[in-house]
Amino acid sequence: MENTLVKSLYAQATHDEDVSVEVTGWLKTLRSSKKISFLEINDGSCIKNVQVIMENGLENYEEIKKAPIYTTLKVVGTVVDTPKAKQPFEIHATEIEVLGNSDSDYPLQKKHHTPEFLREQAHLRPRTNTFYAVFRIRSLAAFAIHEFLQKNNFVYVNTPLITSSDTEGAGEMFKVTTLDLNNVPKNEEGKVDSTKDFFKQPTNLTVSGQLNAEAFALAFRDVYTFGPAFRAEDSHTTRHAAEFWMVEPEMAFANLQDVINVSEDMLKYVINYLLENASDEIDFLNQNVDQELRARLEATRDADFAQITYTEAIDKLLAADQEFENKVEWGIDLQTEHERYLSEKVYQKPVFITDYPRDIKAFYMRENEDHKTVAAVDLLVPGIGELIGGSQREERLAKLNEKIKEFNLDPEEYKWYLELRKYGETEHSGFGIGFERLLMYVTGVENIRDVIPFPRTPGNASF
Amino acid sequence: MENTLVKSLYAQATHDEDVSVEVTGWLKTLRSSKKISFLEINDGSCIKNVQVIMENGLENYEEIKKAPIYTTLKVVGTVVDTPKAKQPFEIHATEIEVLGNSDSDYPLQKKHHTPEFLREQAHLRPRTNTFYAVFRIRSLAAFAIHEFLQKNNFVYVNTPLITSSDTEGAGEMFKVTTLDLNNVPKNEEGKVDSTKDFFKQPTNLTVSGQLNAEAFALAFRDVYTFGPAFRAEDSHTTRHAAEFWMVEPEMAFANLQDVINVSEDMLKYVINYLLENASDEIDFLNQNVDQELRARLEATRDADFAQITYTEAIDKLLAADQEFENKVEWGIDLQTEHERYLSEKVYQKPVFITDYPRDIKAFYMRENEDHKTVAAVDLLVPGIGELIGGSQREERLAKLNEKIKEFNLDPEEYKWYLELRKYGETEHSGFGIGFERLLMYVTGVENIRDVIPFPRTPGNASF
Repeated sequence: MENTLVKSLYAQATHDEDVSVEVTGWLKTLRSSKKISFLEINDGSCIKNVQVIMENGLENYEEIKKAPIYTTLKVVGTVVDTPKAKQPFEIHATEIEVLGNSDSDYPLQKKHHTPEFLREQAHLRPRTNTFYAVFRIRSLAAFAIHEFLQKNNFVYVNTPLITSSDTEGAGEMFKVTTLDLNNVPKNEEGKVDSTKDFFKQPTNLTVSGQLNAEAFALAFRDVYTFGPAFRAEDSHTTRHAAEFWMVEPEMAFANLQDVINVSEDMLKYVINYLLENASDEIDFLNQNVDQELRARLEATRDADFAQITYTEAIDKLLAADQEFENKVEWGIDLQTEHERYLSEKVYQKPVFITDYPRDIKAFYMRENEDHKTVAAVDLLVPGIGELIGGSQREERLAKLNEKIKEFNLDPEEYKWYLELRKYGETEHSGFGIGFERLLMYVTGVENIRDVIPFPRTPGNASF
Repeated sequence: MENTLVKSLYAQATHDEDVSVEVTGWLKTLRSSKKISFLEINDGSCIKNVQVIMENGLENYEEIKKAPIYTTLKVVGTVVDTPKAKQPFEIHATEIEVLGNSDSDYPLQKKHHTPEFLREQAHLRPRTNTFYAVFRIRSLAAFAIHEFLQKNNFVYVNTPLITSSDTEGAGEMFKVTTLDLNNVPKNEEGKVDSTKDFFKQPTNLTVSGQLNAEAFALAFRDVYTFGPAFRAEDSHTTRHAAEFWMVEPEMAFANLQDVINVSEDMLKYVINYLLENASDEIDFLNQNVDQELRARLEATRDADFAQITYTEAIDKLLAADQEFENKVEWGIDLQTEHERYLSEKVYQKPVFITDYPRDIKAFYMRENEDHKTVAAVDLLVPGIGELIGGSQREERLAKLNEKIKEFNLDPEEYKWYLELRKYGETEHSGFGIGFERLLMYVTGVENIRDVIPFPRTPGNASF
């Protein structure tokens, strides 16, 4: 008999009681009365279980009654609609077979577990409802991003992870090496002899694919990266992981306003896709994790995002009837408290802040006419703070050369990047979204460790 | 005036001469006669250029005539259909403006360049027709894979790249560290003190996400990874890169035949998607790279793939009227010459080989009843050899424990992997596709370095 997915049973408004179906799945709960037992079975195809009614006289009855959680079962039976019950239908079993055993000391018995404990069970936690919901949303959100960008003719480019350069001169990178750490070869000066290493030079894990993506934007016009990035920051916050995923669209013939328009459209597309395709998961999270989740997603989908300059934002912060821990003055980098005040108190919706002071932003951002600010933008959203960061890139070769000198970067290392301008001073712009930060926004989950399947943080590389 | 994409001009069967359009793009060629000049412009939106007619009297005429390749231009004009000409339409310019300069020593002037030279210009090579075609196909193939799997309810899981384990006990991995290589901290025994490292233990870059994906398959039923993997092999062939992308679907309640069916469907889906969405690119590659490309893709899309056991394959190789460099006998690992003989000479189409000797395959593959073979499968395709490898996984806890001992692996390191069985001995199976190998198959490009935007190989981590 062909296997039927529980998801497809839920997709049918009514069911034919004369037709027998076969379902395979895992036992989630079992309770027995004198004559019958109720089994909740999940087959992985959707977050909802199916209730199975097993009568006393069924073959294997005694074996099934003792089956531990996560026993693998095959159930054959008829689907009976139950319009008056909590669940819309149930399966009356005519045959149940144990396909695989489970041990009775299953660590995720039905009770509350702390997130910390569940992180130690990262191999089992996707079997819980909360993580099932989060990781299905992660998958759907990733696909929605691909779909939005591909529909708009963006080309997906896989930029390298192992790199000999350091995108922002930021420093905190992981080294990649095949040298024997017990016996590092040294050169005549007593320093590491990197010519003996795999790449014959020092290499790191990338912090961003942007510069490489720019090369492709100048051939394909609209491109994007969507892949892992790394930061070796010894940071123990709820918002930082050593390994995370980034989406980085990059567009030629596009200015800062295009970044704002495309990123707003993309965010709304993803949210709408989730509302349409992950409604059950959002409902579950709304009930159990963040009671404002659905309302926030719908509001964001329907809002016209606000847009102000950094200078206007500073004015609003100075006029706030609220004390900030970090002093507000023109020139500061906005802190999370400032960002949340603007999006939560002033606008109560997402707000784009544009034209930041040049001195607090990266070298590649395009300088404005005032010589004080650059064409940069951040999107601040309620509950999170910064969700998206973008900029128009400095396409003027002479200006970029100046900036590289001013930022004490090595022009030789950026030779190829400068050549992109030498052979095409094309206006172009791009933005980046930390995928996990987006996921925290669309799930209500507050710790980045709980939106990554197997998170990597200082001291933790298990599984 | 709103910008029009060249792609959308090609999508229209006829054009209205009374309407003015604005196109922005890069100058690819320019030739002048007495009265008019012909400019070929590419705007990145498609592989095809648009021909622009510039008359002698136009403002900026002298400036444009001297413009070097890759000058950024804005063209305003009317689109005139040219049914008798090679190109279906051309733009008669009423205004041309230089938006950005290019230097006259552009290294990719219109002439033949060796692949080796172009690899040194990896930041510029996507601007050539060949690499434009290859990398747009790369993007479309990636999306087709996502679309096929998502339509079939597979959940995308991002498995970790930094890992403390070694999936296949294979060895050749990159180390990831934040230790100072000039001054590696040592413990009392004079060995590396990894407790001082970022993760407080030795870590590597992963070679496969499969084991992690299995954990998710036992919650979501059908899942897949699609991300980077790494091998620190000092290999200088045309088929190996240190950094590459893998697709790894993993399915619960699925056996080896399901792997065969799903992988055949997926491969055909991708090929069909490319034939429908990358027809111009395939035409270009068919003319310039591999004259059998289109025929091969269409044949693969339409073929019923063959399927034989390893034992039958050995018999066919022994009966071959051809000498092999590597001796054929039951128990050997098939070499590329054997794989290509089977797919090119015997079947002339893709062929699945199943049930390989247990001793040449990984510990996690499910042992068959004969105790000599495992439920493994490889897909061999003409021109490439092995394209897909998969297996049914050993779900029986006792058997898996035995195998881990037999393969001299550390049971402690696989504790969580064994627990997946302890709490769910569920039949499950999966397969892996090297994305670049697939790309070589669907583009006809013969060197893996030429299907990766910025390839990493021994001694090369530039850009």
